[in-house]
Amino acid sequence: MKIYRFLDGGRVAIGVEDGERIVRYTGRDATALGQATSHAIPRLTAALLPPVVPTKIVAVGRNYAEHAKELGNEAPSEPIIFLKPPSALLPPNGTIIRPPQSQRVDFEGELAIVIGKAARNIAAADWRSVVLGFTCANDVTARDLQKKDVQFTRGKSFDTFCPLGPCIETDLDPSALSLCTRVNGEVKQNGNTRDMVFNCGAIIEFITSVMTLEPGDVILTGTPAGVGPLAAGDRVEVEIEGIGVLQNVVA
Amino acid sequence: MKIYRFLDGGRVAIGVEDGERIVRYTGRDATALGQATSHAIPRLTAALLPPVVPTKIVAVGRNYAEHAKELGNEAPSEPIIFLKPPSALLPPNGTIIRPPQSQRVDFEGELAIVIGKAARNIAAADWRSVVLGFTCANDVTARDLQKKDVQFTRGKSFDTFCPLGPCIETDLDPSALSLCTRVNGEVKQNGNTRDMVFNCGAIIEFITSVMTLEPGDVILTGTPAGVGPLAAGDRVEVEIEGIGVLQNVVA
Repeated sequence: MKIYRFLDGGRVAIGVEDGERIVRYTGRDATALGQATSHAIPRLTAALLPPVVPTKIVAVGRNYAEHAKELGNEAPSEPIIFLKPPSALLPPNGTIIRPPQSQRVDFEGELAIVIGKAARNIAAADWRSVVLGFTCANDVTARDLQKKDVQFTRGKSFDTFCPLGPCIETDLDPSALSLCTRVNGEVKQNGNTRDMVFNCGAIIEFITSVMTLEPGDVILTGTPAGVGPLAAGDRVEVEIEGIGVLQNVVA
Repeated sequence: MKIYRFLDGGRVAIGVEDGERIVRYTGRDATALGQATSHAIPRLTAALLPPVVPTKIVAVGRNYAEHAKELGNEAPSEPIIFLKPPSALLPPNGTIIRPPQSQRVDFEGELAIVIGKAARNIAAADWRSVVLGFTCANDVTARDLQKKDVQFTRGKSFDTFCPLGPCIETDLDPSALSLCTRVNGEVKQNGNTRDMVFNCGAIIEFITSVMTLEPGDVILTGTPAGVGPLAAGDRVEVEIEGIGVLQNVVA
């Protein structure tokens, strides 16, 4: 099932993909989906929103060995986690704004996990029970500020630096999905989630040993090799097998 | 005016201090305070909650030169920012849980700014217009994990690692407030906000040049020298002139 969040007549709505349409559902959000209604809208022209509004976005750094290497780092022995603020969220088709403070803004295509239930101290083997589904994310990063600060926070927290979507796929095995990032149609990252250093179970066990995850919270699972800069006018797409394409433009 | 958030008959309520009482007010939260009601509760026995529920908690590292020095760092040339998750919030009198992963959990008493209005690109001179008021915070830190990870996130994000309160004081000049942290009654930190490397205006200009702050968001402005460890059974108090005392116990 693919769950969408979108504007319908100017109001926030949720719905489920049915061919070329999105059927509107009752319910507060994707983590509390209700019943199908008789109302549907065309999918291709829908005004999509980020599919959830998380209380926090937890991200895992250097989770693909080849990407760690391309930035001069070793693959970590434990997950390296950082947070992105919810104010950085950007809808599908929204515009990534390169801030004046940075001379180097990079794309990072990533598989995102959407949490379905409050979760604390979850064993790796039980990870699927707290997960609603998966979506695509772009962990946009001001690379120069990330290097300068050492702390990742500023470089990864600018408004518009967390495109998310287009939908949450609830029925998916994330262990070996192709993940592709294109800029203006040219393939830049061509990875596979099987190359994660820490898989979804290990990540969820690690994060929930530290903090409680809430329904709707999002985990970005790291980016494969091939990261590179974005320029004004670029069109960037993150495509993950079984989910879809998250497309954004750059200003 | 001192604004409190508390449980009243099992339900979340907001109110304003009036001597030894808290007068209950209408309104959604401290950032949207309504009218006084005829109902009041005794202040000293109130079941206090963190005075706001932020969409994010932004913290400034090494913002007192003497504290930067005690951990072997130089005072920074620009603010170093990091995020703590809202899941780390702890009410006044709540219990700080030392996690099994860490052998060294430290207190860090800090002045916290509570944002009153959505804020983006605010000039330092205009900072007060977006601020609702001030409260006390304890930026509890697993020092060993902070050092190991380099990234501050894990060491500062455990559940219960962000005690906040007891109230929001809206009428306060934060430029020279004494800030004192006591453990079991013994003074450990005896600082003054006049020693901040970056003052409230500089901090708000810097953070809002990166991200939009939302009403209720919280900024932790850094800790003075004197940080040290907490042990099971300790009682830790952060007292800031003009605000009050934030007390917590340790397990």
